[in-house]
Amino acid sequence: MLECVGYGATAASAPVAPISFNRRDPGPDDVVIKIAYCGVCHSDLHQVRNEWRNTVYPCIPGHEIVGHIESVGSNVTRFTVGETAGVGCMVGACRTCSACREGLENYCEVGFTGTYNGVEPVIGGPTFGGYSDRIVVDQHFVLTIPAGMVLAAAAPLLCAGITTYSPLRHWKAGPGKKVGIVGLGGLGHMGLKIAHAMGAYTVLFTTSAGKTEDARRLGADEVIISKDAEQMGRHTDSFDFILDTVAADHAIDPYLNMLKRDGTLTQVGAPENPLSVSAFSVIWRRRNFAGSLIGGIPETQEMLDFCAEHGLTADIELITIDTIEAAYARMLKSEVKYRFVIDLEASKLKS
Amino acid sequence: MLECVGYGATAASAPVAPISFNRRDPGPDDVVIKIAYCGVCHSDLHQVRNEWRNTVYPCIPGHEIVGHIESVGSNVTRFTVGETAGVGCMVGACRTCSACREGLENYCEVGFTGTYNGVEPVIGGPTFGGYSDRIVVDQHFVLTIPAGMVLAAAAPLLCAGITTYSPLRHWKAGPGKKVGIVGLGGLGHMGLKIAHAMGAYTVLFTTSAGKTEDARRLGADEVIISKDAEQMGRHTDSFDFILDTVAADHAIDPYLNMLKRDGTLTQVGAPENPLSVSAFSVIWRRRNFAGSLIGGIPETQEMLDFCAEHGLTADIELITIDTIEAAYARMLKSEVKYRFVIDLEASKLKS
Repeated sequence: MLECVGYGATAASAPVAPISFNRRDPGPDDVVIKIAYCGVCHSDLHQVRNEWRNTVYPCIPGHEIVGHIESVGSNVTRFTVGETAGVGCMVGACRTCSACREGLENYCEVGFTGTYNGVEPVIGGPTFGGYSDRIVVDQHFVLTIPAGMVLAAAAPLLCAGITTYSPLRHWKAGPGKKVGIVGLGGLGHMGLKIAHAMGAYTVLFTTSAGKTEDARRLGADEVIISKDAEQMGRHTDSFDFILDTVAADHAIDPYLNMLKRDGTLTQVGAPENPLSVSAFSVIWRRRNFAGSLIGGIPETQEMLDFCAEHGLTADIELITIDTIEAAYARMLKSEVKYRFVIDLEASKLKS
Repeated sequence: MLECVGYGATAASAPVAPISFNRRDPGPDDVVIKIAYCGVCHSDLHQVRNEWRNTVYPCIPGHEIVGHIESVGSNVTRFTVGETAGVGCMVGACRTCSACREGLENYCEVGFTGTYNGVEPVIGGPTFGGYSDRIVVDQHFVLTIPAGMVLAAAAPLLCAGITTYSPLRHWKAGPGKKVGIVGLGGLGHMGLKIAHAMGAYTVLFTTSAGKTEDARRLGADEVIISKDAEQMGRHTDSFDFILDTVAADHAIDPYLNMLKRDGTLTQVGAPENPLSVSAFSVIWRRRNFAGSLIGGIPETQEMLDFCAEHGLTADIELITIDTIEAAYARMLKSEVKYRFVIDLEASKLKS
């Protein structure tokens, strides 16, 4: 077994604190990555606090992982020691179902293995995430970080980047399309950058007038204050696609009514309570309300290459891991522009 | 003005009773149809009782109209006197917006003119529907009833037929596809027939085990009793498309969870209260929840020709118009298999 050190929780009520743990010995298809940076996703907090009621403890979160390859197994040909590499939300999938065969491991019909709180296939117990010094991952689930990308700012692409890129690509954001992004947080800020880079006319919906300037800097051609009925009314029936990144309870009929005929609103934030949808909102103009979950592995590499080509990374604030609880508290108050990233080398992890 | 006789309501609380009224004098683009039969749609009842709070009285409902052409204007070339013809839910639209130019007058961006309770463009006041002796309609909104079709049983195709055909065609029901129809009423029974004729593996969802035999006769390859969790569970993640025809409040998450990846559930019944949709139902497997409203005029003709080719019409019960209130009462209790049609010639309309 590979002895590792990390930060995690031993119970829903326990703070995230140093933990020693084991990973499987690397097999012939495995890559060992020395983790340099790990983004802080809202899911990390949901999971360590057992807010989805499925957490297996100890829980070591983190699924926006970048670092350097420390060793590779005998079957590994695509990666070499010393290269930069990334790991996102998945470290396994069945690889044989129709979704996996199409490169959509995120929709694996058997269920993908989450990077944390999944089931470790070799040694059992939960999988452990990126709030740690090293990770052992099957090569299929390892991404190449393009040369020249600022490594710390690349980390959030592995979840926030692909979660917005995949639906924007699937529903064909691009030149001639009017695309809305609802919410300016970790996901929303990447959605703005990517939709803009794809060539769409990109509009941010936000409740905060104070975010206008930042939204324009990030790629918004226009900003709509969603509490302003007059502003909203001017855009009725005009959007081709709207990406809703808001995970808090909110009304979506006003956004559905912004869509033109055959337009789609896609939810990537996952509010805990059911959403209320008027049948009339979708019957008029044959509109669609859809969802999207991360993205597949080939599409994640495509997204990384797209971001490199367009000079995109996340706007981040670097922290050391001993301040993670304070970071969570600020994240809950939306006091982060726009993603916390843990500097694991500076964090001097030890058990 | 053309003096007409019909049946309608003068107030929300008044019963549907004989009425004399005027239609515009036929213009060069108009067709005058002597109405033979008119189907009874649930919308008729909503409208006469002002349940949508927008009824202009007097209200003469009916938008599943078939009959014989009595006269044609000087610009009319597609129709000749004596031919059978039909009129559905629309008698006008802007004809210039992008939807109209695509033949989707049902999604006219200005708003189509309803066959009843619309605005009469020449003489003003409300448009009057098919519970009447004659109707004057712009040729663009007149459909040809294919030769050999039983006229009375063709009437419901003009609303129930096209409302189910259009989404089944749009979302590509056909061979190799597993299609569900929710509810076995006027819309649902046409949905079963059409989906089956399109070659889809067709499944009826119903709350009533007693409808199984009839559903199979109408085209269902399989019937699922939606209250039976075990039966429902066997079909999780398996449908390409589900057409939900239920206008009463009901839970749709269980149906969304029946869809495979990228599948769509389309609502054509319009429950008065908002539906509750879990974000997780659409995020997992990238599912879609959509709506659809009737169909365009070219598509309505296509549907009529498709039905003629496949020997399809509605299952109807003929009534005379003096029994319309009793028919409404039975419709509300779902005691009709599967559409009432008014025989206007037998009704001996007089003012």
